[in-house]
Amino acid sequence: MGNKVETTALMAEPFHVDFSGRLTMGVLGNHLLNCAGVHAASRGFGIAELNECKYTWVLSRLAIEMFEMPYQYEHFTIDTWVESVYRLFTNRNFRICDKDGTSIGYARSIWAMIDVASRKPADLFQLHGGSIVEYCTDELDCPIDRPGRIKVSTTDPVSVLTARYSDIDINGHVNSIRYIEHIMDLFSLDYLKDHILKRFEMAYSAESYYGDELRIYQEETAPDSFDLEIRKKIGEKEEVCVKSKVIFK
Amino acid sequence: MGNKVETTALMAEPFHVDFSGRLTMGVLGNHLLNCAGVHAASRGFGIAELNECKYTWVLSRLAIEMFEMPYQYEHFTIDTWVESVYRLFTNRNFRICDKDGTSIGYARSIWAMIDVASRKPADLFQLHGGSIVEYCTDELDCPIDRPGRIKVSTTDPVSVLTARYSDIDINGHVNSIRYIEHIMDLFSLDYLKDHILKRFEMAYSAESYYGDELRIYQEETAPDSFDLEIRKKIGEKEEVCVKSKVIFK
Repeated sequence: MGNKVETTALMAEPFHVDFSGRLTMGVLGNHLLNCAGVHAASRGFGIAELNECKYTWVLSRLAIEMFEMPYQYEHFTIDTWVESVYRLFTNRNFRICDKDGTSIGYARSIWAMIDVASRKPADLFQLHGGSIVEYCTDELDCPIDRPGRIKVSTTDPVSVLTARYSDIDINGHVNSIRYIEHIMDLFSLDYLKDHILKRFEMAYSAESYYGDELRIYQEETAPDSFDLEIRKKIGEKEEVCVKSKVIFK
Repeated sequence: MGNKVETTALMAEPFHVDFSGRLTMGVLGNHLLNCAGVHAASRGFGIAELNECKYTWVLSRLAIEMFEMPYQYEHFTIDTWVESVYRLFTNRNFRICDKDGTSIGYARSIWAMIDVASRKPADLFQLHGGSIVEYCTDELDCPIDRPGRIKVSTTDPVSVLTARYSDIDINGHVNSIRYIEHIMDLFSLDYLKDHILKRFEMAYSAESYYGDELRIYQEETAPDSFDLEIRKKIGEKEEVCVKSKVIFK
């Protein structure tokens, strides 16, 4: 493929698979974000390059849909490309293929660029003279739904946890992947033995920090389809950090 | 280096570093065990090969000592080799080097081979006609202490947790790396900002499973040196699953 699509070859390592021998959603998310980073960096839009200009990428939405998860020791590849660029955000897609090159899943992500100092959104058309648009491509299709609306109205958390050392990234925030792991830990092994994870959506809205009390709210909005919110406690109030939709089949 | 040492090139990925930008001990442990797996597999002693003969490797001890942890995006390498083979266990060592080839840490591990069905130890000299001894080498030195004695006498746990989905590996056990993460999560960010992790020892004695209540006991045996035990609750009793020694400087 041309210069617009980045392809990364990977293998499902033993400590990256779950009880069923399949890659975990958290590890897959980690791989996707790494591939996005490599794609952007090699084209002049990486975090390191942006930091020099005082900007950074912020992940806003992530939707992953898998027909099959790689099994322990299986080789697989991730393709990533930019679908479209708007003034304040960009759509980046992913395709996951098994060792034979057959598609086993897709993902969509939405990113904003912010000014590190003000934390305000930056204009993507101003970045490198707007040259990011040259990397948009429709050479690959991404046949999964765009991230949808997630709404949770319950007032009883299903889980309450405190953000610890292993949750925190170099920016001092609970990292995007750990939220996925905390959500997966809500489901019992018995449930997960009988259901296959089909789609996982994340919407990141506010950062949480070391020591924050995180409350997870969950509603089954359709059979085996769950809407979730992770809210941090601030005094007597709460703020939504993350919304998520998890669909099993 | 000759065929006896396996060298693996790695990079400190963004989601694998902590608040300080340094690789976490859990991720380093994961890399070490993967490198051990690759070394063994490429020489006919891997898990996959052993399973065909109904045997598997079991990690008994791991001791890691780091002078410096790789920083985010830094490249580093891991060398691994077999130091010695006894009838019932083998000593495997590791050297971690920075991008310039300078040693930044070492690790020692002790492995047993067991019969998968009986869970009893197997005779390493019987494996492939004892050819594993041909891979022993003293071509590289491992200048760190061997794993030592760990003793905890306190009866008050510092933390109690339940083994969840993300803890469990393909064998249905809490995986070796998650214990390291749970232990690191005992330390406050303030403490970790002021202290550098120097040595981490693990002694694995019994498996724990999904839903097990895990109680962590901790004693500061010398300034900034901690002995720990993770015990699982069985009825009204407890069984030690893991012992650990964590030394900061």
